[in-house]
Amino acid sequence: MARMMKAAVFVEPGRIVLEEKPVPAIGPTEALVRITTTTICGTDVHILKGEYPVEPGRIIGHEPVGVIEQLGSAVNGYHEGQRVIVGAITPCGQCSSCLDGHQSQCGGRALGGWRFGNTIDGSQAEFLRVPDATANLTPVPDGLTDEQVLMCPDIMSTGFSGAESGRIKIGDLVAVFAQGPIGLCATAGAKLRGATTIFAVDSVPERLAVSRRLGADVTIDYTKTDPVAEILRLTGGRGVDVAIEALGTQQTFESCLRVLKPGGVLSSLGVYSGKLTLPLDAFAAGLGDHTIVTTLCPGGKERMRRLMNVIASGRVDLGSLVTHHFKLDQVEQAYDLFSHQRDGVLKVAITP
Amino acid sequence: MARMMKAAVFVEPGRIVLEEKPVPAIGPTEALVRITTTTICGTDVHILKGEYPVEPGRIIGHEPVGVIEQLGSAVNGYHEGQRVIVGAITPCGQCSSCLDGHQSQCGGRALGGWRFGNTIDGSQAEFLRVPDATANLTPVPDGLTDEQVLMCPDIMSTGFSGAESGRIKIGDLVAVFAQGPIGLCATAGAKLRGATTIFAVDSVPERLAVSRRLGADVTIDYTKTDPVAEILRLTGGRGVDVAIEALGTQQTFESCLRVLKPGGVLSSLGVYSGKLTLPLDAFAAGLGDHTIVTTLCPGGKERMRRLMNVIASGRVDLGSLVTHHFKLDQVEQAYDLFSHQRDGVLKVAITP
Amino acid sequence: MARMMKAAVFVEPGRIVLEEKPVPAIGPTEALVRITTTTICGTDVHILKGEYPVEPGRIIGHEPVGVIEQLGSAVNGYHEGQRVIVGAITPCGQCSSCLDGHQSQCGGRALGGWRFGNTIDGSQAEFLRVPDATANLTPVPDGLTDEQVLMCPDIMSTGFSGAESGRIKIGDLVAVFAQGPIGLCATAGAKLRGATTIFAVDSVPERLAVSRRLGADVTIDYTKTDPVAEILRLTGGRGVDVAIEALGTQQTFESCLRVLKPGGVLSSLGVYSGKLTLPLDAFAAGLGDHTIVTTLCPGGKERMRRLMNVIASGRVDLGSLVTHHFKLDQVEQAYDLFSHQRDGVLKVAITP
Amino acid sequence: MARMMKAAVFVEPGRIVLEEKPVPAIGPTEALVRITTTTICGTDVHILKGEYPVEPGRIIGHEPVGVIEQLGSAVNGYHEGQRVIVGAITPCGQCSSCLDGHQSQCGGRALGGWRFGNTIDGSQAEFLRVPDATANLTPVPDGLTDEQVLMCPDIMSTGFSGAESGRIKIGDLVAVFAQGPIGLCATAGAKLRGATTIFAVDSVPERLAVSRRLGADVTIDYTKTDPVAEILRLTGGRGVDVAIEALGTQQTFESCLRVLKPGGVLSSLGVYSGKLTLPLDAFAAGLGDHTIVTTLCPGGKERMRRLMNVIASGRVDLGSLVTHHFKLDQVEQAYDLFSHQRDGVLKVAITP
Repeated sequence: MARMMKAAVFVEPGRIVLEEKPVPAIGPTEALVRITTTTICGTDVHILKGEYPVEPGRIIGHEPVGVIEQLGSAVNGYHEGQRVIVGAITPCGQCSSCLDGHQSQCGGRALGGWRFGNTIDGSQAEFLRVPDATANLTPVPDGLTDEQVLMCPDIMSTGFSGAESGRIKIGDLVAVFAQGPIGLCATAGAKLRGATTIFAVDSVPERLAVSRRLGADVTIDYTKTDPVAEILRLTGGRGVDVAIEALGTQQTFESCLRVLKPGGVLSSLGVYSGKLTLPLDAFAAGLGDHTIVTTLCPGGKERMRRLMNVIASGRVDLGSLVTHHFKLDQVEQAYDLFSHQRDGVLKVAITP
Repeated sequence: MARMMKAAVFVEPGRIVLEEKPVPAIGPTEALVRITTTTICGTDVHILKGEYPVEPGRIIGHEPVGVIEQLGSAVNGYHEGQRVIVGAITPCGQCSSCLDGHQSQCGGRALGGWRFGNTIDGSQAEFLRVPDATANLTPVPDGLTDEQVLMCPDIMSTGFSGAESGRIKIGDLVAVFAQGPIGLCATAGAKLRGATTIFAVDSVPERLAVSRRLGADVTIDYTKTDPVAEILRLTGGRGVDVAIEALGTQQTFESCLRVLKPGGVLSSLGVYSGKLTLPLDAFAAGLGDHTIVTTLCPGGKERMRRLMNVIASGRVDLGSLVTHHFKLDQVEQAYDLFSHQRDGVLKVAITP
Repeated sequence: MARMMKAAVFVEPGRIVLEEKPVPAIGPTEALVRITTTTICGTDVHILKGEYPVEPGRIIGHEPVGVIEQLGSAVNGYHEGQRVIVGAITPCGQCSSCLDGHQSQCGGRALGGWRFGNTIDGSQAEFLRVPDATANLTPVPDGLTDEQVLMCPDIMSTGFSGAESGRIKIGDLVAVFAQGPIGLCATAGAKLRGATTIFAVDSVPERLAVSRRLGADVTIDYTKTDPVAEILRLTGGRGVDVAIEALGTQQTFESCLRVLKPGGVLSSLGVYSGKLTLPLDAFAAGLGDHTIVTTLCPGGKERMRRLMNVIASGRVDLGSLVTHHFKLDQVEQAYDLFSHQRDGVLKVAITP
Repeated sequence: MARMMKAAVFVEPGRIVLEEKPVPAIGPTEALVRITTTTICGTDVHILKGEYPVEPGRIIGHEPVGVIEQLGSAVNGYHEGQRVIVGAITPCGQCSSCLDGHQSQCGGRALGGWRFGNTIDGSQAEFLRVPDATANLTPVPDGLTDEQVLMCPDIMSTGFSGAESGRIKIGDLVAVFAQGPIGLCATAGAKLRGATTIFAVDSVPERLAVSRRLGADVTIDYTKTDPVAEILRLTGGRGVDVAIEALGTQQTFESCLRVLKPGGVLSSLGVYSGKLTLPLDAFAAGLGDHTIVTTLCPGGKERMRRLMNVIASGRVDLGSLVTHHFKLDQVEQAYDLFSHQRDGVLKVAITP
């Protein structure tokens, strides 16, 4: 009889519930990880609301910290009992897309590398089956706590990639629109790449305060000041070298373009719905040497190693992002709090 | 009394006429070039139609081939009587944007490097004043005719930049939407960068025939076959690595995105008007690692030297693009033919 | 009892002999390929001469064309009987180095991706065991013969990478020192990336003739003309943008540096022995913004797919590189001919 | 009669003396700057010792902070009395090399952009003639002192470029060999680009202490510990992603290569003399996918603007580098102290 475990399961739009599910069996190239800490992502809320489709019965979650419980026969270089994280995106490393440098689009399918809590069962559970384990299990350096590395699998990797895809250079002026967890990590990433004037835009004072700690030089509350006008004023009309979109709305996307200098890069992280229009005046009718680049969270064990090294070196401290703690048994309460953005929540830590 | 010359002058929307204008006087960093051959660009037609605003009285044209008539006192390295071309875009080389690698956006203004026939007088005249002459005068190698280098200042530089900005790699699959002069040069440029399967889309059989000569492996007449479906079919659903937009319409832009693989680059050359919308399904809701990049014709003497070397080496033969010849006196007829795209015209050569 | 096959085996310096060896058994992530055509590489000659150490008993060869005989249980996406090639370098795709884009240095070890005929048995045999088969088996497109794709696994991939690592731009001047099979492919690759003046240097008239067919604009016989002086003369003292070293000697390396412009790239493909010294005058004492880059043959199935597409598109025809044919039974004769460079040999085709 | 000024003049090897020289006259594209602060560079010591040849009578120095005294007629965008710095390298912006992105190799000549105190008179004087002033005068932001921006023209630009040319990525391990002023700036630059483990090597305790403040995670005194063995030990044999050479000796160059992982970048800043040999074992015989890149101090006003923005943002504080102060009258004493590296000197500030 199958060993059972608790897991947060998507049942139907509006309902993610705690259920008993069998502990997964693994194949030769896979691993089983016992989850010690995980969290909820904005994408999970999209799933909860039925805005992003996953099949009913799917275990949700893609931000695992845990311990190796079992290794497939073809997985080398690890031992059972080892503390690991796994990226939200789990590239196979061996398909044409991965070999060509597009690991997040594994298999040549859009979002193909995003499996956990999407096309296979995810991490909001007691155990997690990890595909292509050799490419994805990443040992946690000694001395780092679960919470310190909890942002690595998704939020930190995504936010930093906004700065990286923006090809920030030393001395760049950068604007980051929205300072939720991803925007905050984009701000930290922009500083880490050498941006020297960072404009961070949001409306929540606590988020703007965290933003300043993570690297923002100027914070703008868009409910009080028009951020486009303000950034253009503060840059003497020059605009920024790189604008990072971290929300996924027409307005923030468009504002990015409006503060961008000719020749600048709009680095987009948000998930858009409905319609997205390019304002041709800000886009110089297509003649402004603009670049618009979108990036899905980079994964794989080398990426995770690098991010944990950022934490271990003390370069960036994302500790303040975890504002609330829940047991896995309380996962429904956690979704309730997080999906309604109550009580100043940034990220929650969930421990089975 | 000022020496006079003939020139094609924008008077008002619908009217570009041949007028007598004074031969320009030059300053210390400028040069005067006697035009021997020039041409009309699609942008000039936008000006003619009042779709792109220039001030009445402006001499039109930005594709000069000629001979140095006079050099400013601070211009070194040239001699009078030397055959030269000048790029459509004339970067100063010394502003922050130019020094930062954004030469087309000279001065930090969108399209700032485009001066000829836009913010200063242009090349459809007997003489042309060249600003920042040290950065822009480019000697024509011996043995090349005016017509052989006539495409370098704009069409060839623009089209090739579509391939370059697309960051084509050896073995890439590339689609080029529209095979007017710029699209044809994009096709030639894609081949020159190592694309090995090039899909070229247009509806004019003559253009598709030229396209095949310049490098297209597959040509698609969009009036007969849906190019998106066809390209996806021929690539087994994979899509292309790079899609080049060379027209400036919602439909071609959108088709580019629809044939683009996740992780691919949409390299846009067209001038858009009205509205431009990103279809979110093809854009993977912002999660497909897509890049959209726009490029304004690169200029400056080093760029021009490189393009003329392409011609001189025999790598690319753009001779077939010049389909009609006019004297400057016939410039109004030339506009009439070119703006109505009559008689299979691709490009005209105009000689004062 | 093990099934037996014939194979070219390294016994000791000076001796590579045909032996009977067991047909390899494969594991779950591996494949067995029946070789239909293979060849001998310059590196094999280094092994033969004892200049590159491999263990006695090793089957030699790393350029396989063949048919899938058997697939491991964890290998998906292929079928037995499929025609394939495999790159000389077989990256695992899943280690930190591979995931970080350094596939040839798989495992973080120098040359770590080069396994065939080095750390595991190679392709000069009737059968070949392919590690990490999902990442490395590459179907041959219909219509291409064995000989047409025989250069892809090593020579073509290596030579092209010389052009790619040189970051050639449209209009570049490029020098390629030595026109053996790798240098010839570097010449073809330089043309394919948009170099418009290619200087090819060698002393063998037949090689220089092939070089001109593959893209060289100027060929220089170094026994008759000093290539450094000649290239500087022909470029008016400017030098080349990119110099490709394709032999592995102090003299060719140094000559590359001497013809290189400040800011240029020396792309090195050769295998050096003994000592290698940087001439500080040509190196501008370390202040010339020079780049020296070495590249080991890129492998993996996506690379192989791209190279076969180059062949299939007709962009490059390497057919003339195969000058001699042998049966596997004659492999010792083949080594004798090839290692002494007799009879104008460029590459041999060996068929079991 | 010419107005006279004091200046440090190279007379012959071993002698740089304070002399009276005429205040320079300027041409239309030039500017005259009244120097308020300048400094001595290691290169000046090479000149003093006769190791780098400049013509007798040349005013030395290339690190100017001052006030615009006079502007040429063709220089726009500045006003007299404005506080400015000028980079050590003064690109023209308009030659083929500058337009092609090789501004330090202006004119296509090695080191062509280095004019001050080399091919034209320099900044250790009361006044300085600035060539191509539009490209090179950089206004100092309000609130920054002379000493705060004194490192920008050379040391900071050079050191940072070591990190930039190394193409450091987030999470990289970086070694910096030598922690003189340039090495210290390379360390600061490596941190600013996202390196998370920085090994800094020197023997002077005070320099290692400054190094830790500027970003070094691990400092190694090479007189006590073999830095190659130590770095390999601390990285578990992996080596570093990027090694920066900041001294110019065979030993530091070679050590860089020995700690470099396959696929890594050796970013070289030092000025070498005598002979430089590549150890082939560490260079993997040319098959390790290594890159060696040299960089001459980037100049031009955009570069200077960016560096001053780094200072203004508080990202990096180089204040501790200025250890000694002299009046211009004491310049000979300053050379005596600096050239003998007495009294823990890092950099001196010289004020006319």
